[in-house]
This record gives sequence, structure tokens and C-alpha cells, in this order.
Amino acid sequence: MTREQLIEQIKSKRSFLCVGLDPDIDKLPEFLLAYEDPIFEFNKRIIEATADLCVAYKPNIAFYECYGIKGWISLQKTLEKIPKHCLSIADAKRGDIGNTADRYARAFFAKESAGMEFDAITVAPYMGEDSITPFLNYKDKWAIVLALTSNKGSYDFQFLTDASNQHLFEQVIQKTNSWGNTSNIMYVVGATRGEAFKAIRHYAPEHFLLVPGVGAQGGSLADVCAYGMTKACGLLVNATRSIIYASRGTDFADKAREEALALQQAMEKELIKAGIIQ
Amino acid sequence: MTREQLIEQIKSKRSFLCVGLDPDIDKLPEFLLAYEDPIFEFNKRIIEATADLCVAYKPNIAFYECYGIKGWISLQKTLEKIPKHCLSIADAKRGDIGNTADRYARAFFAKESAGMEFDAITVAPYMGEDSITPFLNYKDKWAIVLALTSNKGSYDFQFLTDASNQHLFEQVIQKTNSWGNTSNIMYVVGATRGEAFKAIRHYAPEHFLLVPGVGAQGGSLADVCAYGMTKACGLLVNATRSIIYASRGTDFADKAREEALALQQAMEKELIKAGIIQ
Repeated sequence: MTREQLIEQIKSKRSFLCVGLDPDIDKLPEFLLAYEDPIFEFNKRIIEATADLCVAYKPNIAFYECYGIKGWISLQKTLEKIPKHCLSIADAKRGDIGNTADRYARAFFAKESAGMEFDAITVAPYMGEDSITPFLNYKDKWAIVLALTSNKGSYDFQFLTDASNQHLFEQVIQKTNSWGNTSNIMYVVGATRGEAFKAIRHYAPEHFLLVPGVGAQGGSLADVCAYGMTKACGLLVNATRSIIYASRGTDFADKAREEALALQQAMEKELIKAGIIQ
Repeated sequence: MTREQLIEQIKSKRSFLCVGLDPDIDKLPEFLLAYEDPIFEFNKRIIEATADLCVAYKPNIAFYECYGIKGWISLQKTLEKIPKHCLSIADAKRGDIGNTADRYARAFFAKESAGMEFDAITVAPYMGEDSITPFLNYKDKWAIVLALTSNKGSYDFQFLTDASNQHLFEQVIQKTNSWGNTSNIMYVVGATRGEAFKAIRHYAPEHFLLVPGVGAQGGSLADVCAYGMTKACGLLVNATRSIIYASRGTDFADKAREEALALQQAMEKELIKAGIIQ
């Protein structure tokens, strides 16, 4: 999906919502356990209930990998269910030296290789340029680089400052910018860091940011928009648990839709306020 | 595998060699392509030819993941072939927030979850403490943290220096040390950085270091040992391409053994020189 197509989707759906698909077999509605592939059945119903309200889906790969072969089958089937009008993000946080990163790119971008073709993948920056550029060689695909994450551990290294008082996460954005452009790189920036969006927009004024942490993790949508929104929106705000686990009953898909709708409506207001839609 | 068992293996095999298992279907001996699972057949023969000469095997997960379900099956079968007297390392470089890292730990350490039980996994430090500690909760398992890697991109962020002139890779070691101990944490340190081993031993005087980059990547075994060896060895030196691709003919396993033997013999000399064996 191109940047232009993504912006078009945001405008037409009046939403910049990304729905996280992190299914935990122990948290699924019980009636789904009778199906051959409960995880896929769960995801399918979540997708069907929310696809008109969101512009992206983000399966976190760990939640499939931990079930082995069965998990990878569930993931492949889930990806097939994600409509083409939604950006599909493999939240894999991969990162390795050049020739190995190239393998990971194939795994998630080249359908003939591993049976999956995502639009985007999250990647870790620690190993530098050759760990990221292989993902940028695929047309209309995205590398979403970890910059400032929403977890407690983000304070351990991401805020390290050099002699010029620049933080590691700022260096990551500044350097990575020069390896790609606003049409193939996004950044992960946690919503629990409202104040940090200013610094991030200094280095990445136009890039899309993938923002986890709204909802269950305590981040504020209003703060994220106040500091992070651009003229082309520039935000994909992710919610996972608040949507997919809104109910554990047979009504889970309806409740998921209600939660997604509430977020979409809040996002619509922000888009209107910013003059992006009328 | 415990630290004591690993040291015992090093002494009895007179070797601290780790063999990388990164099979590329395009580089395999042609006769193997007739088998149902050429990658497994390749790994099996490499393992059988080298298991008495090395103390560890390290499949890089990208080389399996890129083949999808088939690749994961090859990986599972390969892991079953690695003898219990060798440390099995999943070179996965995973890293995510706490509850997700826990999923990755299950994927590679809990056989009942994804069908695999490795002894160790490589992990990326960027997301901090909660991305690493879930791997430390497994008895006799190891988290091998990326510190200073052997690739060109390592210069992008790992050498970032703070006001006190400490590099990012040094901060990674210093902080990570406090989350675990010398029996459950190792560090990845590239062999192309002989001089840096001094700094690393300052922060991690006793930890085992997993050292890629000897051989094909140009690192020197003598330098690594001069600066990095401890009284308990403290090194696992990895070689991949120089061993597994020593020949593309039907003699590939014999040639792999010759290469592994040459490395083992060089390592034996270093172990004798250091007084670790006689």
C-alpha cells in the first residue's frame, strides 16, 4: 500500500485506527475452542466486525510463533482475511545483519517464499543500516522502525543522551530517515509519551507514526493528536486489548465493534479539527 | 544446559566452537535437492560430521522463517538432531514488551508450546528490561544479548557515547548484568572488534561471549582469545559459512569436518596456552 493510498483510506474511513490482533488462546471466548482453528476464527470475526472502522491490522507475530506450526497457519489464514483496503502490519520487531535481514524481508513480504505478503513490518534498529535497508527494497512496502516504545524498559536505553544532548531514539529517527523516505519508513512511538511527540516531529515532520499504548496502556488520543498529527494525519493509532477482549462472551465481535466505533468517532473529530476531513 | 556443563564440554572436547546452521537452498549441494526436506538433510549431515568438534549449534531463525511452514518443520527436525551435549542456540534476535517477550520465550524454550526447546536464544536490547527478563525465568536457559555486533551497521548506534564517554554497547552490558547473572546471560560480541573485547571484559569479566565473525567475516581467533578469554574460557566462537559451505559437492560433510577440525585444533592450542586444559 502506498502512502497516498493510506491517506486516502484515512480520509474515506474517517479513522486512523490500527487494530492489534494478538490472540491469546486462554483469553478467547470459550465457544470458539470447539473450532479447528480457534485463533483464526477469533481473528476472522474481529476483522469482519471492524474492517470498515480501521485502516490497519497488526498481528504481533509472537502470539502466533508461540503456537509453532499451528500458529503460523493461523497467521497465514488471518492475513488472507485482512481486506486489501487495510494496511497489514507484521509486528515482528526483526533485526539482523544484511544478508539475514534480507531473509526476514522475504519471510514477510514475498508470498512465494513463506506464503505471506504483508504491507509492513516492524523492525528493531540496534544493528544499524544493513539491518533495515533490505526491507526498503520492496515496492510499496513499509519498514516501521522502533523509536520510542511504550513499555517501562524504554527508559533503559532509548533515552540515553550523547554529548550534544540528543537521545538515542532521536538519533535512530535522524539516521534512519536518510536510509529511506516518508513513503517506506514509519516509526513506532508509544502513546504514553505525549510530550515526546514534539521532539519526534522535529526529526520526522512528515513520517507516519505507529502509536501503541492508547487505551489499556493509558495513553491519551487527544495528546497524541495535539503533538503528533500532521496535515496528512501522519498517525496510525493502535488499540489491541480494549477492542479484541472487550467481551469474552458470544457477543465479543459486537463489543469489539463498539469499542472500535468509539475510537473511530474520536478520531473523526480529531481529523475534522485538523482540517483533514470536513 | 548449565554454565558448569558448558565449561565441562569445552574442556572435554578441547573446543569452544559454535557451528552456525544457516542453510540457503540455493547454496546446498545439488544432490540434496532430491530429498523431501533438503535443508534438514543438509543440517543432519553437518551435525553428524561435526558434533564431536563443537560445543554449540546456532541455527539463525531467518533462514527457516523465510521458507514458511516448511522452514519451521526443518528447524524443528534440526533441533531434534542436535545432541544434548551441544548447546542449542536459536539465533532469533527477538525483542518486545514484557507480555510479548514471554510469548517468544515460550516459542523457543517451552516444548509443549511450539514444539521446540532450545538451550539459548539471542535477544535484542533496544526495548530494555522487560523485553529480556522473561527469557531469564527458564531454568538452565540462556538469553544471549546483542552487545557489539560484527556488521557495518554496528557503527550506527552501538558506539553512541553519553556524557561520561560510555558507549551504548557498554551500557547494554552494564545494565543487563544486573537483570541476570553469568549462568543465564551471555553477550554477542563480533570478532571483527578485537580491541573492543577489553572494554567488554571490563563490564563482563566472567560472562560467556558468543563471537561471530571469525573466518568469512575476517575476525581473528588469536585476537579474540588474547583479549576475550577468561579462566573458564568464556567464549563461544561461531563459524558458519567457512564450515557449512566448505564444499558444494557430495563431500560437503567431510569438508565441513575438516574446517571444523582446523578450528578445533586452533582452539585447543588457545585453551592449553590459557591453562584451561593440559
